[in-house]
Amino acid sequence: MQTGNTISGGTVVVIGIDGGGTKTVAVLADSNGRELARSVGAGANLQTVGAGVVRERIGSLIGNLLSSTMGAVKVRGLAVSLAGVDRPADIPVATEAILGAIADLTAEGQSSPDASADGGEGVDARGLVWELPGGLPIVTNDAVAALAAGASTLDGVVVIAGTGSIAFGVCNGVRARAGGWGSILGDEGSGYALGYGALRAVCRAHDGRAPATSLTGAVLAHVGASTPSDLIGIVSAQTWGVAETAGIAPVVVRDAEAGDAVASGLVDEAAAELVASARAVIDTLPFERSRDLPIVLAGGLWPASARLRDGFASRLSEHVPHARPSVSAHEPVEGAVWLARREAGLLPPGEGG
Amino acid sequence: MQTGNTISGGTVVVIGIDGGGTKTVAVLADSNGRELARSVGAGANLQTVGAGVVRERIGSLIGNLLSSTMGAVKVRGLAVSLAGVDRPADIPVATEAILGAIADLTAEGQSSPDASADGGEGVDARGLVWELPGGLPIVTNDAVAALAAGASTLDGVVVIAGTGSIAFGVCNGVRARAGGWGSILGDEGSGYALGYGALRAVCRAHDGRAPATSLTGAVLAHVGASTPSDLIGIVSAQTWGVAETAGIAPVVVRDAEAGDAVASGLVDEAAAELVASARAVIDTLPFERSRDLPIVLAGGLWPASARLRDGFASRLSEHVPHARPSVSAHEPVEGAVWLARREAGLLPPGEGG
Repeated sequence: MQTGNTISGGTVVVIGIDGGGTKTVAVLADSNGRELARSVGAGANLQTVGAGVVRERIGSLIGNLLSSTMGAVKVRGLAVSLAGVDRPADIPVATEAILGAIADLTAEGQSSPDASADGGEGVDARGLVWELPGGLPIVTNDAVAALAAGASTLDGVVVIAGTGSIAFGVCNGVRARAGGWGSILGDEGSGYALGYGALRAVCRAHDGRAPATSLTGAVLAHVGASTPSDLIGIVSAQTWGVAETAGIAPVVVRDAEAGDAVASGLVDEAAAELVASARAVIDTLPFERSRDLPIVLAGGLWPASARLRDGFASRLSEHVPHARPSVSAHEPVEGAVWLARREAGLLPPGEGG
Repeated sequence: MQTGNTISGGTVVVIGIDGGGTKTVAVLADSNGRELARSVGAGANLQTVGAGVVRERIGSLIGNLLSSTMGAVKVRGLAVSLAGVDRPADIPVATEAILGAIADLTAEGQSSPDASADGGEGVDARGLVWELPGGLPIVTNDAVAALAAGASTLDGVVVIAGTGSIAFGVCNGVRARAGGWGSILGDEGSGYALGYGALRAVCRAHDGRAPATSLTGAVLAHVGASTPSDLIGIVSAQTWGVAETAGIAPVVVRDAEAGDAVASGLVDEAAAELVASARAVIDTLPFERSRDLPIVLAGGLWPASARLRDGFASRLSEHVPHARPSVSAHEPVEGAVWLARREAGLLPPGEGG
């Protein structure tokens, strides 16, 4: 998928890329952060797909973006936030993959960043100029971009609740995280956890081990099953995975809203788990208690459930009175663009750290 | 694997087979239930491996058992208990697979039960006589054999806690079950649940979301990891499955015994879950409250943990004072042999229902 306009020569641009587990979004923006072109491709979790596939997918997206440019457009910033970039050792691996992607484009004659020779400056056959600061792209975990998108700062906390979940914070350059272990080891408070809890609640209720719940009818209808026993075959099938389990989350949110006690309990438990993750991050970092602490709520679960937002905010305020949670109005890729502009010195004075 | 002696002609024998998720045990016994030969093969869960593989594996084991016989040995009973035989519709599917297995042996000239023609009687090339009552094998869920093995009766309750978990009961021919939904939908209180809980406890402790626990060092050593972060790659690998997670259970049991609060909490939670399953079964069935109710505890988790046994017994007695839980001293395959003898009218008067 691609949108965009023809960009005239001489324009200074930046590229922000957000690579998640299921899709990757790339945006070409001008020096003020205004979106000029966008391209969307498959997921680019470094751990899941590997560096080779990251190279290929990032290269394809950059190629798409640049196809809308003409003449000596100057690429002055490139920030790539990727799921699966978790350990320090992941940064050079991902950086090399992205430099490789640019080199691949060069080989195709689309662009030629001679990063190693002249500090990231190079001119391609069509006049494209690469001027990456230090010759390198900015590579971060996707939580960093989500934080930057929501807070326009690198100091704060982001709590992501989508298919998976993680809390991530930065304070004066020191980073901390909690959760984000994946569906087997963690992801408490995520859409996956809600779907998983709903499936088990249906089976418990069927056995008489737990109260009856409106989730029984709702979940069976959602997955196309006639009886709870049918669930065994459905979840054992090759086609059933983490995304399918997380796909049940909207059913849970809806039944909780309608007053079902079991569904409400699952949402409340998710709120408590996300507070536990946020607190673990906040307690680790030296945030000033005298100042408001921005808590960016990112991921699809937050806009879907008022009960989750309210439960999270009230529980967190008991322990961290200066926390100011708010649902992010911006996509993570906007945070990547912001990071690219920041690195390129394109932010106006006073904006961002 | 096979053990056994040469069986002389004219002997009346029965065959009991217990097909679990990981292995299948087949025993040839005399009319008194004394074991004459044994053969062990791969698992035969009907849902997991399918009817075709069940046919093949059961056939192979029966072939092994019969290779130790000579002359006109009379097979007067065959009982097969299989994991995954859960719904009424599973019985004819499994029965057909087992009759097919016998037919396959006939084709190889080893035996020839002409079940359809003469009510289960037939003589093979070596003089083997099939005299199955009604011409059909007894096919049951594996929980039925575990109950029969532990209680020598079909009236009672069995609570299985091994890799998976299930509670199953029979009262005057009426059956009830709770749990046994598999690792995704259920198996609360199982070895899998203990291992899963331990993995998550290690990650929570690492984040600061939960208390430190001796499980961190113990689990990392068990799986060969240096840090909790290594767990992500380990549990995501193709080689990691339900059996590997359940393999952590002994570590949890040991640390609970040594006094670790988190490990103890996991074992106590397992006891509570198994009580919930047992109660759901007991409440469903019309057991007489004036008589002792045998509760057979089967599966590898029970002998491993005194804390589990004691916690289960004390919690259950609060709600069901006439319950008499005891760890089964017998293998499920002994229950299958008992079922085969019972169907063949070989039990002494007064033994078993």
